[in-house]
Amino acid sequence: MFESAELGHKIDKGTYDRDVPKLREDLLNVQYDLGEKKSFPVIIVVGGVDGAGKSETVNLLNEWMDPRHIHTHAFPELSDEERERPYMWRFWRALPPRGRIGILFGAWHTAPIVERVLGRIRNAQLGQSIEEIIRFEKMLTDEGVLILKFWFHLSKQQQKQRLKALEKDPQTRWRVNDTDWERFKSYDRFRKVSEYFIRQTSTPEAPWIVVEGLDHRYRILTVGKLLLAAMRERLDEKPFGRLPDKTPPLLPHVNGKDVLTALDLSKTLKKEKYNKDLETWQGRLNLLTRHPKFKEMSVILVFEGQDAAGKGGAIRRVTQALDARIYQGIPIAAPTEEERAQPYLWRFWRHLPRRGRFTIFDRSWYGRVLVERVEGFCSESDWMRAYSEINDFERQLLSNKTVLLKFWLQISKEEQLNRFKEREKTAFKRFKITEEDWRNRNKWEQYHQAVCDMVDRTSTEIAPWTLVGANDKYDARIKVLKTIVNRIEAAL
Amino acid sequence: MFESAELGHKIDKGTYDRDVPKLREDLLNVQYDLGEKKSFPVIIVVGGVDGAGKSETVNLLNEWMDPRHIHTHAFPELSDEERERPYMWRFWRALPPRGRIGILFGAWHTAPIVERVLGRIRNAQLGQSIEEIIRFEKMLTDEGVLILKFWFHLSKQQQKQRLKALEKDPQTRWRVNDTDWERFKSYDRFRKVSEYFIRQTSTPEAPWIVVEGLDHRYRILTVGKLLLAAMRERLDEKPFGRLPDKTPPLLPHVNGKDVLTALDLSKTLKKEKYNKDLETWQGRLNLLTRHPKFKEMSVILVFEGQDAAGKGGAIRRVTQALDARIYQGIPIAAPTEEERAQPYLWRFWRHLPRRGRFTIFDRSWYGRVLVERVEGFCSESDWMRAYSEINDFERQLLSNKTVLLKFWLQISKEEQLNRFKEREKTAFKRFKITEEDWRNRNKWEQYHQAVCDMVDRTSTEIAPWTLVGANDKYDARIKVLKTIVNRIEAAL
Repeated sequence: MFESAELGHKIDKGTYDRDVPKLREDLLNVQYDLGEKKSFPVIIVVGGVDGAGKSETVNLLNEWMDPRHIHTHAFPELSDEERERPYMWRFWRALPPRGRIGILFGAWHTAPIVERVLGRIRNAQLGQSIEEIIRFEKMLTDEGVLILKFWFHLSKQQQKQRLKALEKDPQTRWRVNDTDWERFKSYDRFRKVSEYFIRQTSTPEAPWIVVEGLDHRYRILTVGKLLLAAMRERLDEKPFGRLPDKTPPLLPHVNGKDVLTALDLSKTLKKEKYNKDLETWQGRLNLLTRHPKFKEMSVILVFEGQDAAGKGGAIRRVTQALDARIYQGIPIAAPTEEERAQPYLWRFWRHLPRRGRFTIFDRSWYGRVLVERVEGFCSESDWMRAYSEINDFERQLLSNKTVLLKFWLQISKEEQLNRFKEREKTAFKRFKITEEDWRNRNKWEQYHQAVCDMVDRTSTEIAPWTLVGANDKYDARIKVLKTIVNRIEAAL
Repeated sequence: MFESAELGHKIDKGTYDRDVPKLREDLLNVQYDLGEKKSFPVIIVVGGVDGAGKSETVNLLNEWMDPRHIHTHAFPELSDEERERPYMWRFWRALPPRGRIGILFGAWHTAPIVERVLGRIRNAQLGQSIEEIIRFEKMLTDEGVLILKFWFHLSKQQQKQRLKALEKDPQTRWRVNDTDWERFKSYDRFRKVSEYFIRQTSTPEAPWIVVEGLDHRYRILTVGKLLLAAMRERLDEKPFGRLPDKTPPLLPHVNGKDVLTALDLSKTLKKEKYNKDLETWQGRLNLLTRHPKFKEMSVILVFEGQDAAGKGGAIRRVTQALDARIYQGIPIAAPTEEERAQPYLWRFWRHLPRRGRFTIFDRSWYGRVLVERVEGFCSESDWMRAYSEINDFERQLLSNKTVLLKFWLQISKEEQLNRFKEREKTAFKRFKITEEDWRNRNKWEQYHQAVCDMVDRTSTEIAPWTLVGANDKYDARIKVLKTIVNRIEAAL
């Protein structure tokens, strides 16, 4: 794996001085073309051995290209903001939008390798991290991101010489400290772990490129030329036709018996009992949020359901019980321009709550497998892969002490009609009914199938769906509140 | 995940009797179309809860379609043949060729789930198996295989009732024994483990389809209709244009310094010394194969190199030291018709040695990233994914106590010219030189780049390449023999 990067590659000054002006010009051009077309984002991941010229390379890239359109991120100690979210949150924040280049200096690969070298995690955990990274990078490339992963390498001998040389020169002496020599002692172990890591995480779409770090001219010319070639190739790519459909069909829910038809929609709750129950459960919920341990967890509520199923009303009955400072309601409509320039889960990652707080999603990431699927806003392979991407996402939430509740509010087709008519009649409700609602109603069966598939594929032991028969609003609201209270109580 | 499969789906006799004749006719037709077009193989994976009707479903599929074109495989206890090969070997043997349907009754998923339920492996190992299975299935679908994975489910209550019903009926009593009741006790644990497994291994290309197993009519109609729809969809697919190229370029080896140019080709060995050394190392090799522990391992030798680099000669010097009963030489040329109908690694899996034996490949699976890449016999994404597929393959070999040695024999362009001319001059060597050799020679630089990439991507700590300067045949042969002896000695 490292053989090619231990040969002592060098480029002489003459060649360098001749090649650089043209390369800089080409890089600037390709950068502007990218910015204009905005067809994809570029992520440059920088990793490797200490002293192999990582930061010099990053600096030069910023010098050679237009730094206003490059987002460079390093990932030092976690901030308290970051510590309260899943590990990948800091990287989601750093993703460049379409048309931009993001340089990630020590990205998601760093922690697993370093932790393993230091013996803080075991091989099995390293393996798990690797699996998660592969899935994450696959999601990125499936979303069209161009990922270039550069690993700057030095042989043991080379690293030693390099550290000594830096130490000797008064101008660079400050760059070497005891930690560097301490870390040099574990060179062999670092090499072994990173060799394994590089091998396992080199996929066709995002292979590691190992670059010998000894000679600064070779290093930067190699990176620059490869970056140019990769961006140019992707930009020049002709638009391609339909992708081959490699996804087999799912179970058809046509037999009249499925998780939705199995719901009892006839349950009702008298107004008097409702008012009493509401007070009880809202009170309990409020008390729970004052529990000292509540500060160590966060809560995410997801509300999905047909148009007019009563999501808004149910959400209001929850928020009535909460201090306005500890929750945030996120209504999900069409994505903003900024959101469209990112992988589709980005717009949800940005709203993840800190500890001791609620985020309440009125519609959610499930739009991908509901409206986007039914309306054909994304391809079949896009929504098919979304199931596992969503499961991955939710697993990360749960392992970060988040209580996640997902509600599907189901009403009958007749009940929807009644409510639509009601809305059209009542002046202050008229804004709630649009042409689109009627159009969606015509696709009732398609949505039905999509919801069943969604439950089949994403109702997991760790993040189950709660299906709520919502023909009776009172009954539905109490069920929602009760479920929330019970789940938080169990988690405390 | 299992919600839809616990609703008590049933199909009445009338509907069943009406639907089946048409379904059978359609299934037969789609099967014949597949057999004629031979465009892809179909793999049906059957798994699930005991008593959920797995074997009845398999039997009916065989009854409804033409069983001559269905390969049904069950995987009971490992045979001694199988025990001596990597775990996946038995499944590679069972893969159906293009145009055929293979039913795998309890496939690669069974062992990891059962072992975990019984507590014989830990979560980390289960995770590792899952990762390997995902990679394996991805390889299959990348190779065009249509995989349908059916999971037959029963709720705990349903399974209990089913076992009791079988026991009560004198005709089916024999199908229930103590083991079944013993296993029923771990239902909850089985459900938990398999829920996790199904979730993690459901990919867009190969999702699990969970089928409620209670009612035999519902079960078989559901499976039959889904199989029909999936095959028909794939068969009717229009040929699609060029796939999007999502692979960034690799490091160019153009700087005059790379792992091949770094080789010393000027080394020579005098004939006299060669003869003495040859005797020494062949003797040591022969002795090693008589070591009692040698029976517990196997050896695979891979020889690659330019045309006329001396692969054949080097191989002969190895085999001279071996008892003819313990080695098999496999020259790799164009694949046979049977081999072309399978994923490309299949032709190598079939030749894996048993313990105490050698397999010597004269050219190998590396053809994918050498000749197939350079000649354009496969697409860029095919050979790019081959690097990780090969690393996966070799990792499986090594974890099965196989000693794997990979030799690249390198000669200079001038030396090749001399040898070509020599071959043309000498009557008994003339068969060794063809037009194709001259054509390959014209692509010297492309092969050079391909070899460097191959070393970069597949020379790993566990399976390193040995690069041999082979301008001097004597020196090369001794280096090969010496390396083999040292590696086997280290492994014993």
